[in-house]
Amino acid sequence: MAGLQVAVVGATGAVGREVLRLLTERRFPAMAVRAVASPRSAGQRVDGLPVEALAPHVFDAVDIAIFDTPDEVALEWVPVATERGALVIDNSAAFRMAEQVPLLIPEVNRHALYTRSRIIANPNCTIATITVPLGPLHREAGLRRVIACSYQSVSGAGQRGIEQLWAETREVAASGGAPSGAGGGAFRQPIAMNVIPAVGSFRGGHTSEEVKMGAELRKMLEAPQVLVGVTCVRVPTLRAHGVAVHAEFDRPLSPAVARDLLRRAAGVEVVDEPERGLYPTPLGAMGRHPCYVGRIRTDEAGLLAFFAVADNLLKGAALNAVQIAEAVVEDGVLIASRA
Amino acid sequence: MAGLQVAVVGATGAVGREVLRLLTERRFPAMAVRAVASPRSAGQRVDGLPVEALAPHVFDAVDIAIFDTPDEVALEWVPVATERGALVIDNSAAFRMAEQVPLLIPEVNRHALYTRSRIIANPNCTIATITVPLGPLHREAGLRRVIACSYQSVSGAGQRGIEQLWAETREVAASGGAPSGAGGGAFRQPIAMNVIPAVGSFRGGHTSEEVKMGAELRKMLEAPQVLVGVTCVRVPTLRAHGVAVHAEFDRPLSPAVARDLLRRAAGVEVVDEPERGLYPTPLGAMGRHPCYVGRIRTDEAGLLAFFAVADNLLKGAALNAVQIAEAVVEDGVLIASRA
Repeated sequence: MAGLQVAVVGATGAVGREVLRLLTERRFPAMAVRAVASPRSAGQRVDGLPVEALAPHVFDAVDIAIFDTPDEVALEWVPVATERGALVIDNSAAFRMAEQVPLLIPEVNRHALYTRSRIIANPNCTIATITVPLGPLHREAGLRRVIACSYQSVSGAGQRGIEQLWAETREVAASGGAPSGAGGGAFRQPIAMNVIPAVGSFRGGHTSEEVKMGAELRKMLEAPQVLVGVTCVRVPTLRAHGVAVHAEFDRPLSPAVARDLLRRAAGVEVVDEPERGLYPTPLGAMGRHPCYVGRIRTDEAGLLAFFAVADNLLKGAALNAVQIAEAVVEDGVLIASRA
Repeated sequence: MAGLQVAVVGATGAVGREVLRLLTERRFPAMAVRAVASPRSAGQRVDGLPVEALAPHVFDAVDIAIFDTPDEVALEWVPVATERGALVIDNSAAFRMAEQVPLLIPEVNRHALYTRSRIIANPNCTIATITVPLGPLHREAGLRRVIACSYQSVSGAGQRGIEQLWAETREVAASGGAPSGAGGGAFRQPIAMNVIPAVGSFRGGHTSEEVKMGAELRKMLEAPQVLVGVTCVRVPTLRAHGVAVHAEFDRPLSPAVARDLLRRAAGVEVVDEPERGLYPTPLGAMGRHPCYVGRIRTDEAGLLAFFAVADNLLKGAALNAVQIAEAVVEDGVLIASRA
């Protein structure tokens, strides 16, 4: 596939920058990479590339466009890109639940690539964290029900989330007391030395994040019967989302068998020596590629429990998008679906 | 009950100081309060009182002794205090599961006071946070199974936990990066801008904190059949523990009925207007008496879910201990059990 052109849309954002870095680091076989962003970022440089303003013509010679934009931008521009001939890997929620659009984690459901869809969706960062380990466990024992409680970093709310945590951290370090503000910036409450049991917008008592979790997990596991109870909570960490999982399966699944499956699972790294102080943590996962899994046990209620952490900007976003692009190229999907 | 003498053992610790403050603030009907601590604290003053060294004779004229000490100190000294005639309210885990010892949250199981036990145990701070709201829900609908994931503050690990968070917070505020240390002080990993999925010591994959949760909840609700799956996680907050709860009941329990029961429940304050940014948070609960409950909903898996937060040093420790002492005096248990 000589002469492959890739565009990264939203190139100046945290995820876009990681995508550009990973394309280089992983030697993605692109002849050219174009950095695209909103017109107000045009003219900047990112990762050594000039930033082009988002416009229909930028997609004319593009084979693969990796989008990381708000949902509303994706809704408008992803169809423009596909019309101009690009295959789009989209990190927004805009197309994830569209029936014909594959929602993909290569380690979990790579076969879903084989469609005629010109859009491939990248999952929500929190559900990606637990789908990587739940995939092999589901294949072994049949997932029935999951209760998941998240410990999500501020970078999930973008640059403003990061800025609010840093500003409040500097404030409390100076004052020696609790943050004075009533939130501001990204969150409606202070986040330094606090936790906020709300991620996303509310609808009928649930957050948008909580609703996505169940829907996306079922789609990726192709298991429409799985029930998912979720509480999403923002915690004062910079990067990497943790999730406590308590899962019920159709068939017996011991912690020993689960641990063995997870040790052999692609994309998973088991860190499970709690007596030695070794378990997954956000600081340990920050900047790293695997989904870390530890605290594997049967809880007292008889459910298989574990704690998973993955970098929300990497496996939860940029890395998975680049891995999808790699799978597209390796499997010749780009050519197949154009034919 | 004229002439009541109260001793606070562990008076120089964070919980002991709160007990002394609350005895004054709530006008506890004591003629005299004695502050007792380890010999190395003797001679200090706390809350205006001279600190006496822990010794058998200090209990000679004491009617009620409120202990907040490590388990091993309680195991040694609580029997000394009861032998000398004191009724002991003990905040350690040493006697909580002893069959003849009541484990008490006055709003939940005040009737358990009526025993001949000279020891009354104060529950673990994390389980107290969810037992206060689960009590009335259990009476209504019959609790069957609970999955609970905690967001526990560093003060649960004592002064060293608080110091580690402050030291690391100042470090990251100055450096603009992640904490450099590999933990140290209270926790085996850094806690600033991190979460640690481990609270307490490990035994067979579970933490001591996780094991306590189920056992203590069942005892207080007098519901030996209730199954409790728990993940306990330390987060970088100073004070107040949050717990995400997903609970299954024998009989249907709608969020509306649950909300109504909780609004009327003693010791609970419902904060549940998430669309307006109002939900329980550790910063909102810090220094306050109620157990705050919000995010009340039926999750997608059909379980009743809520998020509860209470100050671990108050309702989770000092306040509940003083409320037990108040109940003892009001109900005349002190006299009854001496008779």
